[in-house]
Amino acid sequence: MATEDIAKSLEDSNLESETKEDIVTPWDVAGADDTGIDYDKLIKRFGSSKVDNEVIAKLEKVAGKPVHHLIRRGIFFSHRDLFTLLNLWEQGKRFYLYTGRGPSSESMHLGHLIPFVVTKWLQEAFDIPLVIQMTDDEKALWKNIEIEEALRLTKENVKDIIAMGFDPSKTFIFSSLTYMGQCPEYYRNVIRIQKCVTFNQVKGIFGFGDSDVIGKIGFPAVQAAPALSSTFPHIFGKEKVPVLIPCAIDQDPYFRMTRDVAPRLGFPKPALLHSTFFPALQGAKTKMSASDLNSAIFLTDTPKQIKTKINKHAFSGGRVTVEEHREFGGNTDIDVPYQLLRFFLEDDPELEKIRIAYSSGEMLSGEIKKLAIECLQPIVAKHQESRKSITEDVLELFMTPRKLNFK
Amino acid sequence: MATEDIAKSLEDSNLESETKEDIVTPWDVAGADDTGIDYDKLIKRFGSSKVDNEVIAKLEKVAGKPVHHLIRRGIFFSHRDLFTLLNLWEQGKRFYLYTGRGPSSESMHLGHLIPFVVTKWLQEAFDIPLVIQMTDDEKALWKNIEIEEALRLTKENVKDIIAMGFDPSKTFIFSSLTYMGQCPEYYRNVIRIQKCVTFNQVKGIFGFGDSDVIGKIGFPAVQAAPALSSTFPHIFGKEKVPVLIPCAIDQDPYFRMTRDVAPRLGFPKPALLHSTFFPALQGAKTKMSASDLNSAIFLTDTPKQIKTKINKHAFSGGRVTVEEHREFGGNTDIDVPYQLLRFFLEDDPELEKIRIAYSSGEMLSGEIKKLAIECLQPIVAKHQESRKSITEDVLELFMTPRKLNFK
Repeated sequence: MATEDIAKSLEDSNLESETKEDIVTPWDVAGADDTGIDYDKLIKRFGSSKVDNEVIAKLEKVAGKPVHHLIRRGIFFSHRDLFTLLNLWEQGKRFYLYTGRGPSSESMHLGHLIPFVVTKWLQEAFDIPLVIQMTDDEKALWKNIEIEEALRLTKENVKDIIAMGFDPSKTFIFSSLTYMGQCPEYYRNVIRIQKCVTFNQVKGIFGFGDSDVIGKIGFPAVQAAPALSSTFPHIFGKEKVPVLIPCAIDQDPYFRMTRDVAPRLGFPKPALLHSTFFPALQGAKTKMSASDLNSAIFLTDTPKQIKTKINKHAFSGGRVTVEEHREFGGNTDIDVPYQLLRFFLEDDPELEKIRIAYSSGEMLSGEIKKLAIECLQPIVAKHQESRKSITEDVLELFMTPRKLNFK
Repeated sequence: MATEDIAKSLEDSNLESETKEDIVTPWDVAGADDTGIDYDKLIKRFGSSKVDNEVIAKLEKVAGKPVHHLIRRGIFFSHRDLFTLLNLWEQGKRFYLYTGRGPSSESMHLGHLIPFVVTKWLQEAFDIPLVIQMTDDEKALWKNIEIEEALRLTKENVKDIIAMGFDPSKTFIFSSLTYMGQCPEYYRNVIRIQKCVTFNQVKGIFGFGDSDVIGKIGFPAVQAAPALSSTFPHIFGKEKVPVLIPCAIDQDPYFRMTRDVAPRLGFPKPALLHSTFFPALQGAKTKMSASDLNSAIFLTDTPKQIKTKINKHAFSGGRVTVEEHREFGGNTDIDVPYQLLRFFLEDDPELEKIRIAYSSGEMLSGEIKKLAIECLQPIVAKHQESRKSITEDVLELFMTPRKLNFK
């Protein structure tokens, strides 16, 4: 696996001991200083490409419609091989989408929706199959929970994912702990991948050490395998179909590894589309955490809870006094209510109006908080309403290995 | 996993660099000097127990019949917790049998039969279920073969195993590469085990290093899981059933690890019954190898091939000249034809007669070779005849996860 990607990642891990860098791994995200994650630096360090105007124009041309605001606003900021994939698409070569989630808490928070929102947009724009992995095995290995509890959390989280409105005729959602026991090709691909990667390499990429349990050491292959279309014979048969993986940037180490291994197994390198992290209520510069109830707005929160959380906990970029605020204006870069609007308010002119009003000092903190509350309350309420209709039968439909619509 | 077993094994691996010891791992067997493996030393080093007269008496009492000659003759020389298991049996607690094979060559040789011969005897004596694992994933990881080839070798080898006459109503034979994709509980148990074992520990037990592929590092859990009865819900439901594992002593490292983990997962420690190695034709002191065609008698050999191999390649413990031989006699300890008879000639008085005649010099090398040939030719021919009747349907019957007779 002596490719640039891997060499780069090994080099990085050496560098980290010398210069202070942002830590971005699947299990740990922390800025080098209190300015938070420097995403431009991350692109350089990871060796990915920026989602610039050219990429967006290409995506809009191929999709035949404007891109989703999460892409347009630079929240999906980085990619790998998206251009190549879109060129192939134009030549008539289909691809599929793969994303996932580690089910770690009963209820998902707003940040967890982000990859799924863009994935859904991509699925609808391209009319292609989507596979969603619930890495309950990862959670059982990393967290102090039993297999049974991981499986239960998977079911709860899948209900939230289905509630986002995915099309069951094109979407397969699977738990690794279950699908591994339903499809021999999955385990066979895991072994094929595990045969290509040494402990030294996962040490370099993920920072594993000698005292880590062997389940962790082998796990990256479990997350890599769904990027090979043969892991889903019921969908793709034996066809080698390219894949696009929308995910948060902290998942990139898995797919750097996958991109290295896939060609050795005769598969195309997966293309990637990376998002920044969703801000915690306490500050736009860090990642929301499901373990701190006040750090996030959960999909189970009532309108009143949303109101209280934003009013009480959302970090404000406003000035200390009204007078100062009127004079100097608020800082939208660090203002969490503004960031929430940036993620969830669809209307571009409206958002721009708010930005100008807030940063000029015309709009006060209390006012922008109110707008954020009014934006999120109906989104969460609608989600809850939609989730109610997810019966066990619907759950089973999505999670049953089956043929999907794929031309 | 800080138990005596593991501490011992770590200690051993340290010792090995200082004093010269026999190497006995699942992938490497070599005597420290040309006297071959010292099995008594191995018992001490591994911390197992000798199969002595007391064990044999207990086994005969409980089984209600004389033990198999491979046990009686000390070929199954070592055990772990066999007494405990037999005591439980007397109290009405059933157990199951688990053994396996790594399918590395198209045709099995006589040595490969040994664990299966005694396993079959045990199954018939106790009338209990048996699970046989084909570790085709191990072979794909360790050897330069593809998954597809490993699966093909599994099928070929399973035919040989079935041909030994196992009862399909009590025997389940499975390929890890296939059964992992048929039964979610298998993978779940693998993860449960992999969560209990660190890289440091497999390093100590198996000698893995940083440049080993991660598939190897995780594999021991795949061989450990079938020692937990919940890996076979179709046979045992949720019952926690004790297990006895008959195997060659080189497989012990896997089960030392398993014995450490099982109680932490609420399962009894597996009991073990270890065999010595089957001699290569070139010398009784080493293990037969499937890769050297002249080192072994294969189950596909013709009567003529058997005759030629034994006459031409079987290491003789006889003297250089007939005169010397008549005077000093042959050495049965190193005489391969005698060793072959010891493994395969069932008649005790007959074997003893041969031993006396050969070691007194009364019987010549050519004569004992002839006896070995006459003993093995019909065994191999009968096996070939029996294998012919193994259709794809029979293969599928044995390899389909299903209920077995288990009271």
